[in-house]
Amino acid sequence: MDARLKNLDRAFNPRSIAFVGATEALNKWGFLILNNLLTGGYEGKVYPVNPGRETVLGLKAYPRVADIPDDVDLAIFTVPSGQVLEALQDCAARGVKAGLVITAGFRELGREGAAMEAEMVKKAREAGMLLIGPNCQGICCPASNLYPWMPILFHPPRGSVGFVSQSGNILNMLIGHVVTSGLGVSKAVSSGNEADLRTVDYLSYLAEDPETEVIAAYMEGVHDGREFLRRAREVTRRKPVVVLKGGRTSSGISAARSHTGAMAVSETLFEAACRQAGVMITRSIEECAVTAASFVSRPLPRGRRIGIVTGGGGLGVIASDFCTEIGLEVASLSPAVLSELERLLPDWWVPGNPVDLVAGLDFTVIKPVLETLMTCGEVDAVLFLWIGAPRNENQALKVERGMDISGVWDLMDRHFLEYSHELYEMMRRLEVPLYIATTLRPETRGEREADRRPIIFDSVESACRAVSAMAEYRAYLESPPGKG
Amino acid sequence: MDARLKNLDRAFNPRSIAFVGATEALNKWGFLILNNLLTGGYEGKVYPVNPGRETVLGLKAYPRVADIPDDVDLAIFTVPSGQVLEALQDCAARGVKAGLVITAGFRELGREGAAMEAEMVKKAREAGMLLIGPNCQGICCPASNLYPWMPILFHPPRGSVGFVSQSGNILNMLIGHVVTSGLGVSKAVSSGNEADLRTVDYLSYLAEDPETEVIAAYMEGVHDGREFLRRAREVTRRKPVVVLKGGRTSSGISAARSHTGAMAVSETLFEAACRQAGVMITRSIEECAVTAASFVSRPLPRGRRIGIVTGGGGLGVIASDFCTEIGLEVASLSPAVLSELERLLPDWWVPGNPVDLVAGLDFTVIKPVLETLMTCGEVDAVLFLWIGAPRNENQALKVERGMDISGVWDLMDRHFLEYSHELYEMMRRLEVPLYIATTLRPETRGEREADRRPIIFDSVESACRAVSAMAEYRAYLESPPGKG
Repeated sequence: MDARLKNLDRAFNPRSIAFVGATEALNKWGFLILNNLLTGGYEGKVYPVNPGRETVLGLKAYPRVADIPDDVDLAIFTVPSGQVLEALQDCAARGVKAGLVITAGFRELGREGAAMEAEMVKKAREAGMLLIGPNCQGICCPASNLYPWMPILFHPPRGSVGFVSQSGNILNMLIGHVVTSGLGVSKAVSSGNEADLRTVDYLSYLAEDPETEVIAAYMEGVHDGREFLRRAREVTRRKPVVVLKGGRTSSGISAARSHTGAMAVSETLFEAACRQAGVMITRSIEECAVTAASFVSRPLPRGRRIGIVTGGGGLGVIASDFCTEIGLEVASLSPAVLSELERLLPDWWVPGNPVDLVAGLDFTVIKPVLETLMTCGEVDAVLFLWIGAPRNENQALKVERGMDISGVWDLMDRHFLEYSHELYEMMRRLEVPLYIATTLRPETRGEREADRRPIIFDSVESACRAVSAMAEYRAYLESPPGKG
Repeated sequence: MDARLKNLDRAFNPRSIAFVGATEALNKWGFLILNNLLTGGYEGKVYPVNPGRETVLGLKAYPRVADIPDDVDLAIFTVPSGQVLEALQDCAARGVKAGLVITAGFRELGREGAAMEAEMVKKAREAGMLLIGPNCQGICCPASNLYPWMPILFHPPRGSVGFVSQSGNILNMLIGHVVTSGLGVSKAVSSGNEADLRTVDYLSYLAEDPETEVIAAYMEGVHDGREFLRRAREVTRRKPVVVLKGGRTSSGISAARSHTGAMAVSETLFEAACRQAGVMITRSIEECAVTAASFVSRPLPRGRRIGIVTGGGGLGVIASDFCTEIGLEVASLSPAVLSELERLLPDWWVPGNPVDLVAGLDFTVIKPVLETLMTCGEVDAVLFLWIGAPRNENQALKVERGMDISGVWDLMDRHFLEYSHELYEMMRRLEVPLYIATTLRPETRGEREADRRPIIFDSVESACRAVSAMAEYRAYLESPPGKG
């Protein structure tokens, strides 16, 4: 890896931080981001820089970076754009190796801003200092309890999904979906205008990061398409990269230009080239996050043949349609496998795939049914669709007549959760991927467990898309590497 | 309306119910459904029918329907399929006008079942009695506190979305999404095998039901395509109908056959014909439910030109792309409108649509911005994308350094909720539809208010699809009625 890029280690695991623009004005980013850093539990040294204050939030403040009596690994800038350059020169002189420029008001505002931005990059590069941003929301690294970013008091847990996004809002939403799915974050970057480091640099860094298992990225444009694709190919050979691309249409491109000043590229060409480079392209924020999360702790399917197990016939129909529409194959099971399943299921079961459990919610039957599919050699992935009990807690029960059996809800939810662990254990043993989708509400799915449990999908469609993306990725890995 | 169809009034608003197969065996449908009926607060007479018991759940039981000393409006059947016919003849003799056959084991199991089913329908029709089902999960009508259906203790609130579904599970999930959106149910039917009444009959009934404003339907097939389309056209001239069609692909069709024995039709032809008949076709359970809900209490857009207001640039890019991809037009605003907006927004605002509030979350600015768009005559619908504060409550704050400002979350959520009411009031006054999408969690969106508040969308994509469907419906209403 490029030596300067290696300095990202200082950004994600700093021993000390200079915070340029630290303040106690409650509505300023210089307060909100500093406060996130402190309340997130970062244990290194924090040096507020503010020429007008003795202390900030109980920490001794310094007029300039030059005055800090210590080495500084990471400098964070929240001062107005006109003041960044001077502070940055101070940092360069002190040997600071990583700068996080939250400040906006550069290239995205036109020529004058672009000139300031170029000057800033020039100075940083001369000093061997890397810059994240400008015009970004910050970064996070839960393993270091490091959350110098904008979303207020948002401290997602440690995990193995890495993120890079040209939009802070989209970054938050991507992480939100992954956390709701029960997983956590390795490292996340809001890359903003990408004046110095670009998306592809972060991808290269995350490819070598041992904490990161899969990468989710939001991009609005690339500066050098050929270079991007060359380096992306190196990354995707090592780790899956799931991308949401903004600026796919003329109106999206024009919106992107005013957002981060991104240079748009021809959508169709770029998307096709990305796919050839092993990058998985998605169409919505939720799809990007959930697809990326699906790779965590789950074996890759060997092909596109799918077995579907469902507690309700309608869901099986929906799932069959959707699988077929996105190019998966609803496996035709052999008579031998069907008769094995027939032995497990009630008399009125109609043999076929989807395997409709005909409202039989007996957990002791589900496991051998799934095991039969996972070991028969006729399917490459198994979808298990479990309809959680629908609830509406606003309506009071009238128990003067009838019985309050609402305890059944929690019982079934808990049973399902424990059971899903067993099923995922089985998956790991048999090395055939299993995708469980349920209407069970996320908040009842129990404690997060640091990525030990593969995600449970909210919808049939998300689960099917995940199978498809993972099968696509396996096919890519097995293809001969393309030329540069 | 057909006189026999009018008997559905008895099914949805019965003064008295005979429950054939009532039991206290906790794992039987004859208990679970009866218990839902009682705990849901139904206030009419309930007569359990069970020859082996004196009472069921504290109610006096009768050996046969013939023994009930009262008129019966609705008979519910949960006895095994072989016993339905005899009980049904009893009902016919007593002049019962509506039967709900929960029992499965008819046509979906093959020829013998099909013969029983045909005989059952023949007897019912001779007696002027209508049948719902068989092989269904039941019905509900919150206005009557009537919930004789399978999902345990699920009593969704009263509202104006009507449902008909050939699958009970899909029905539950459709209703679940609508309730989560903050809306309620007028009437819902799980139509099962549709031996007697078919989807189109329920559509015709709901078209005349004053409680129903919009209809959501899940279908696996139609028995008579021409007849269906003729009657659907009558319904769609009066109310929007949003359909999710299962059995769109060969694998889906084969799954549907074993589920409800539905006769599948050529997907492409049927879908095109449906669209011509004003039926809106959707591709997932969530899309069907949310699109239907979007019609409640919201004016129809006059065309496909959309204005987008967002607090984050990335979301504006995503929304622009998605709108363009589904055939909406991101409106080009005139210099006059842009300069009006410029007066409201900060100096560093870049004029254009999407209107990026450049992280300005000042509520007093948002309203005039939206009003400018809604009154300028250059947009037909307005999308307002509000990013709720992301949260992760599993991580404890380290407040020995830094401040606990988590109260801001609730403050902003509450403020947003109150504010969304104001915005929707404005929408009703100006008669230009507004679509608010937010990442704010549903459970923090406050009390349901019986459809007074139009739904808040969970995703940019759902909101855009809703605009598109509503614009499509308006164009349909303004087109000359087609020939039958």
